[in-house]
Amino acid sequence: MSRFFSSKLSALVPYTPGEQPKDMKYIKLNTNESPYPPSKGVVEASKKEAGKLRLYCDPTCASLHASIAELCGVDKCQVLATNGSDEILNFAFMAFSDKDNPIVFPDITYGFYPVFAELNGIPYEKIPLKDDFTIDVNDYIGINKNIVIANPNAPTGICLGLDDIEKIVSSNPNNVIIIDEAYVDFGAKSAIPLIKKYDNLIVTRTFSKSYSLAGARLGFGVACAELINDMNTIKYSTNPYNVNRMTQAAGAAAIKDNDYYMSNCQSIISAREYTAAALEALGFTVLDSSANFLFAKSDKIGGEELYLKLKSRGILIRHFTSERIKEFNRITVGTQEQMQALIGEIKAILEV
Amino acid sequence: MSRFFSSKLSALVPYTPGEQPKDMKYIKLNTNESPYPPSKGVVEASKKEAGKLRLYCDPTCASLHASIAELCGVDKCQVLATNGSDEILNFAFMAFSDKDNPIVFPDITYGFYPVFAELNGIPYEKIPLKDDFTIDVNDYIGINKNIVIANPNAPTGICLGLDDIEKIVSSNPNNVIIIDEAYVDFGAKSAIPLIKKYDNLIVTRTFSKSYSLAGARLGFGVACAELINDMNTIKYSTNPYNVNRMTQAAGAAAIKDNDYYMSNCQSIISAREYTAAALEALGFTVLDSSANFLFAKSDKIGGEELYLKLKSRGILIRHFTSERIKEFNRITVGTQEQMQALIGEIKAILEV
Repeated sequence: MSRFFSSKLSALVPYTPGEQPKDMKYIKLNTNESPYPPSKGVVEASKKEAGKLRLYCDPTCASLHASIAELCGVDKCQVLATNGSDEILNFAFMAFSDKDNPIVFPDITYGFYPVFAELNGIPYEKIPLKDDFTIDVNDYIGINKNIVIANPNAPTGICLGLDDIEKIVSSNPNNVIIIDEAYVDFGAKSAIPLIKKYDNLIVTRTFSKSYSLAGARLGFGVACAELINDMNTIKYSTNPYNVNRMTQAAGAAAIKDNDYYMSNCQSIISAREYTAAALEALGFTVLDSSANFLFAKSDKIGGEELYLKLKSRGILIRHFTSERIKEFNRITVGTQEQMQALIGEIKAILEV
Repeated sequence: MSRFFSSKLSALVPYTPGEQPKDMKYIKLNTNESPYPPSKGVVEASKKEAGKLRLYCDPTCASLHASIAELCGVDKCQVLATNGSDEILNFAFMAFSDKDNPIVFPDITYGFYPVFAELNGIPYEKIPLKDDFTIDVNDYIGINKNIVIANPNAPTGICLGLDDIEKIVSSNPNNVIIIDEAYVDFGAKSAIPLIKKYDNLIVTRTFSKSYSLAGARLGFGVACAELINDMNTIKYSTNPYNVNRMTQAAGAAAIKDNDYYMSNCQSIISAREYTAAALEALGFTVLDSSANFLFAKSDKIGGEELYLKLKSRGILIRHFTSERIKEFNRITVGTQEQMQALIGEIKAILEV
């Protein structure tokens, strides 16, 4: 830290993204990327923009917003595209929480939430998941605080039903509820239809997982026009041209090829079911996942040990060191072939 | 504003980017874009990444940072690439200014500086330019406050010499000085060599102007490793994957084709000299520009009137409404042909 760093940020601990090692080729099951390439339409649309880069992108993202709105069945004034979904999450934290308006979230969830809170000087509270790693909805009903919940949750993969989400939203009418649906396409029900009914709900999404666009950086939020307008104020006060030309085009093209991506999601769901069953057959505890990853632990080998042994065998998975989940690993679901390779290596490690 | 918007932001007035009308084709001289396309190497490099978008980009921007470092003659730990230079500016405001550490800048300068200050709750002071729109260096010597100066300044185009910049940096050793060099390639001297000598200097740059990449969104900061490290803390607390794959590749490729871009800058400088002389011949007051735009006013026609009349004739320039500069317009320097068309239309409007 330099002698100039603002004292209000001196305790800030940044987020640690998953490792991206360059020393060798891995089967990469550690950052929840899609194993399937972007569609031809996306590649063509991105390439077409490459020659036009001398001109600024559309700061209003008009065409992209129209496509997203159609996909989600909302009006285009209810949509805001961002440079990845981390940006829309940060905008939502900045716009609606502050020292007088704290935010709460589960103790085991996306590790960026406490970072956004710390960065913006927002008091926050972590509500423990139940022993089985599910959310106790009663913990959130009528608590009169802003809330962010990932649904499905990460890294557990467990989802809440729409009725439970609605109970949380409706019982906290004077607070903003953010539902982070980064993984929703892999088996959960979206809360977007609730936007029409509630003015205090923001749903965030990403193109990084189900739309194979992690490297393009595209996320978005859906909410009533007033909340979107407030987050637009943040956008135009930080980075009006936040989504570059190539990515705006890629996003709109991806939505045109929606069937391709939803079919990929089905393949991933099948590979997930295969992998969960295979891990359980090896004695693993596997949480019930509605995401493109599994969260699993073994009684026969520690979480960190399994992570390290798999890495040395060329398979990367994600291990978290926090006490409650340190025996688990988060395993991205890739292709069926990749998952068979994973199971083969785990069998070899366990010598079964 | 929704009923949920944080009261600390209620007075925030966002930045207004230049208009991007879609009603007709204009000669677009309003947002300081380059009239020249990106080089073939950039187009090819961006296209090559389009097929790899399923994978996250490198959060460390290692290859791009190495290229920028080589271009600038610094170490790669002294570089941080961002999603446009607005992002590095915002990071610098966030990291080093706060309610106890105010920031100062000229009254006439890039309109985003007060927005960044308001957004981050930073007290700020505008120091008036002299009557001739130059900066009085004495106003900044030993003032013991953080400072941001665009060099060349915008929208005036007037630059400070390196000796003056050094006086400002060296006389405020306990404050961070940001030199925003968005337009430096069009005639000013860069302060980057001073980085080695001063631990309180940040130089920011953009690929949007001289490198024809406005639509790709790429900026960067150069500073001592400690300041870069602090801004990295901000990056990893907001958006670790802030620069997408295609743009990282485009930036590195642009640096490889540096000669092409510097040659374009020479063409723009020639067109600027032609345009300045032609405007002066028409009785305009034209400030001495070292940028890719001219700031000019006429005694024969008001600033807004000229802007509107040129717009109706298919030429877009930028008019600002603030009192001190409302009779001026900022005119981006395009190709020689575009500038001849501009002069022709102005002659027709003035009936000379």
